[in-house]
Amino acid sequence: MPHDICKISYIYMSGGMRMSDGPGTSERGLSRRNLLKRGLAIGGTAAAGLAGLRSAAAASAGGDPAITEIQDWNRYLGEGVVTRPYGTPSPFEAHVVRRDVSWLTADATSSVSFTPLHELEGIITPNGLCFERHHAGVAEVPPDEHRLMINGLVDRPLVFTMEDIKRFPRENRVYFLECAANSGMEWRGAQLNGCQFTHGMVHCVMYTGTPLRYLLEEAGVKTAGKWLLAEGADAAAMTRSIPMEKALDDCLVAWKMNGEALRPEQGYPVRLVVPGWEGNMWVKWLRRLEVGDQPWEQREETSKYTDLLANGTARKFTWGMEVKSVITNPSPQAPITHGRGRTVLSGLAWSGNGRIKRVDVSLDGGRNWHAARIDGPSLPMALHRFYYDFDWDGSELLLQSRAMDEEGFVQPTKSALRTVRGENSIYHNNGIQTWHLNAEGGLENVEVS
Amino acid sequence: MPHDICKISYIYMSGGMRMSDGPGTSERGLSRRNLLKRGLAIGGTAAAGLAGLRSAAAASAGGDPAITEIQDWNRYLGEGVVTRPYGTPSPFEAHVVRRDVSWLTADATSSVSFTPLHELEGIITPNGLCFERHHAGVAEVPPDEHRLMINGLVDRPLVFTMEDIKRFPRENRVYFLECAANSGMEWRGAQLNGCQFTHGMVHCVMYTGTPLRYLLEEAGVKTAGKWLLAEGADAAAMTRSIPMEKALDDCLVAWKMNGEALRPEQGYPVRLVVPGWEGNMWVKWLRRLEVGDQPWEQREETSKYTDLLANGTARKFTWGMEVKSVITNPSPQAPITHGRGRTVLSGLAWSGNGRIKRVDVSLDGGRNWHAARIDGPSLPMALHRFYYDFDWDGSELLLQSRAMDEEGFVQPTKSALRTVRGENSIYHNNGIQTWHLNAEGGLENVEVS
Repeated sequence: MPHDICKISYIYMSGGMRMSDGPGTSERGLSRRNLLKRGLAIGGTAAAGLAGLRSAAAASAGGDPAITEIQDWNRYLGEGVVTRPYGTPSPFEAHVVRRDVSWLTADATSSVSFTPLHELEGIITPNGLCFERHHAGVAEVPPDEHRLMINGLVDRPLVFTMEDIKRFPRENRVYFLECAANSGMEWRGAQLNGCQFTHGMVHCVMYTGTPLRYLLEEAGVKTAGKWLLAEGADAAAMTRSIPMEKALDDCLVAWKMNGEALRPEQGYPVRLVVPGWEGNMWVKWLRRLEVGDQPWEQREETSKYTDLLANGTARKFTWGMEVKSVITNPSPQAPITHGRGRTVLSGLAWSGNGRIKRVDVSLDGGRNWHAARIDGPSLPMALHRFYYDFDWDGSELLLQSRAMDEEGFVQPTKSALRTVRGENSIYHNNGIQTWHLNAEGGLENVEVS
Repeated sequence: MPHDICKISYIYMSGGMRMSDGPGTSERGLSRRNLLKRGLAIGGTAAAGLAGLRSAAAASAGGDPAITEIQDWNRYLGEGVVTRPYGTPSPFEAHVVRRDVSWLTADATSSVSFTPLHELEGIITPNGLCFERHHAGVAEVPPDEHRLMINGLVDRPLVFTMEDIKRFPRENRVYFLECAANSGMEWRGAQLNGCQFTHGMVHCVMYTGTPLRYLLEEAGVKTAGKWLLAEGADAAAMTRSIPMEKALDDCLVAWKMNGEALRPEQGYPVRLVVPGWEGNMWVKWLRRLEVGDQPWEQREETSKYTDLLANGTARKFTWGMEVKSVITNPSPQAPITHGRGRTVLSGLAWSGNGRIKRVDVSLDGGRNWHAARIDGPSLPMALHRFYYDFDWDGSELLLQSRAMDEEGFVQPTKSALRTVRGENSIYHNNGIQTWHLNAEGGLENVEVS
């Protein structure tokens, strides 16, 4: 372990007394807020009562070992329980928020906000930071009045209340949800300076719901029923065609995320979960499932969410999200501030095909690759967290990550993608991302050829 | 599937037109709020434009198939993106909160609030609903000023900034945290009417941190160093002794929960994670780790967090949380409202020894047992979700669950616990919980002998 990682700027001077032996100096019922109101500063007696930390400079200067500094938060009672029945982040974390790109869309009611991936760790996205994408704003749906209908090629058309849905067997699964347009701005070159904007249309939570097949079995899908139309209850009435094979496989009709009710912008009270497939199909505020014998060719699967190739034809029904990864730290929004020496490189990898098998990291723009360490639960179609711990020598680097999934698919370079698909695409860019690290620790979104 | 689960009170009348074929009726830029401000109600034209749901009663009366009812939320644009940069739950979920028992403690700054287990699903607790327990209120610690010291029997006493800590290799683990006093009020019989209060001093999140052993290795633990004192930076200066073997095994110095920074009431900016052991040892606002050759016998491990037996002696250092489970739905705060028929029984099980291997459910107070279905990730020292799907015939039941862990430990009855430990205890009650279900679907906390 390099010694320079520990900036010993403070040292504890106990004078032989254990810090924990001293009596507490907080006065019962005397909160910090009350003290501030009274304009009172506790002086020497309090400082003598509780050990604190003082600077190594003072200590090395041969100063008295008596306490010269005390941490403010040791001296006062904090807020009591249930000050916030529903808790909120520390005020020191106020910068950790979703951010939108209102310049990108004509209206905030059909727009997107991005998950701050550079501020997160592990594989679970907290509900308050999950990116949003909606086409007619966030519908306000009273759960008691909401209904889900199954109609079309079924033996028994049915309408379910939320309580009805909750009487079917439940499953809990951690899945990533990625918008097909994630990284879309990067098709024509490095555009946005931060992984929140280049890759922030992805989140990963534990969903609870009932397998869609149970509801379809209840209605009785006719033999000719090969497709399913999922429809949302918002003003956009979002509609997507889903092949019956997928619907009967692993889709969920979900009403919880990370344990609690879906957030309004995630489809409260109920949404479709289509594991590994593009987020647009995970219809929110789900109100109707129609069984048919062919796809419906809706707006969102023809003029949108198709991939216009160089020759003028378009790929359609490109549902699966391909193997992908990004380095979240360091990154343009999260520079290295500690100088040279031991550095933690942290990132995310995922694939709609299943688990991530391997992630490699390059420090030189793809010439040499090093195996990253995948840490934490490895769950199918969920985010995976990877690390590469290295000693930074202060030189400029070109940081890249490259993921491989359990089906053997390997994340391509952006130029390889363009060779196959041209430059007209918006969706399904899973190309390797590059951050240029400069000698000061700052980073920039760049492309290497 | 019993037919009565689907209350077909609404039916869709399409008149041959697919619901999704009609043009949207929302007017661009015309939000619901704006409409309400203008006192305008959209009338027949809007209703004709978008298919809606209407009651089966109207349909069966031979009424016209034209739409007679339209859902309000289909008609108006909702709020746009980043109205809430940090998202919040739906207003319809305002009842899903932590609740305190201020009558139980002398002051709110040394008290507890409880996780609403009956409102949650899966195994992840959202950060805003994780129970609180603190002894001098919630310390407000500026992360840039916070320091963590390692001193005592070490080669190199060290002081770490938060940035220093974050340069060590990281791990991500899902663990439950249970207060030793969880279910403590139940020692002398059924007391509190709801699993939020009987079992709500537990939560389960994904923690990110550095293994404690890396920091201890950096300081160099001397051969005589067999114990560790962990100390908090709040006004209580919470202190607990931890055997070095555990410290070097799986403890984490953690700064993230469910991906984001620790919440203030959970020890922001840094806490100790002591997997499988009682929550009191997971010292919050962690500021000091002292290495010693024997335990410190602090207040919180002598007069508190020990178990007074019937013969007047006390068990101490009873760190591990034993195998335990509780039925969260139905339960006193979450009665059955759907009447007879298919019913989902949902619950949680956990053990400080590792994974849960099996959960059994009884409907008759422990005479007959049925294997429950454990669903979702099964991770060591994490909550496990179990289900038992059954047809309720409307009769009175005595609901119980009994967990077994991978070490073979089986959850005991409360009376078996009392036989061994008497009735003086507060902590470590992992006895089987009983809910009495009455014919109306209501539930009550009871004991069966």
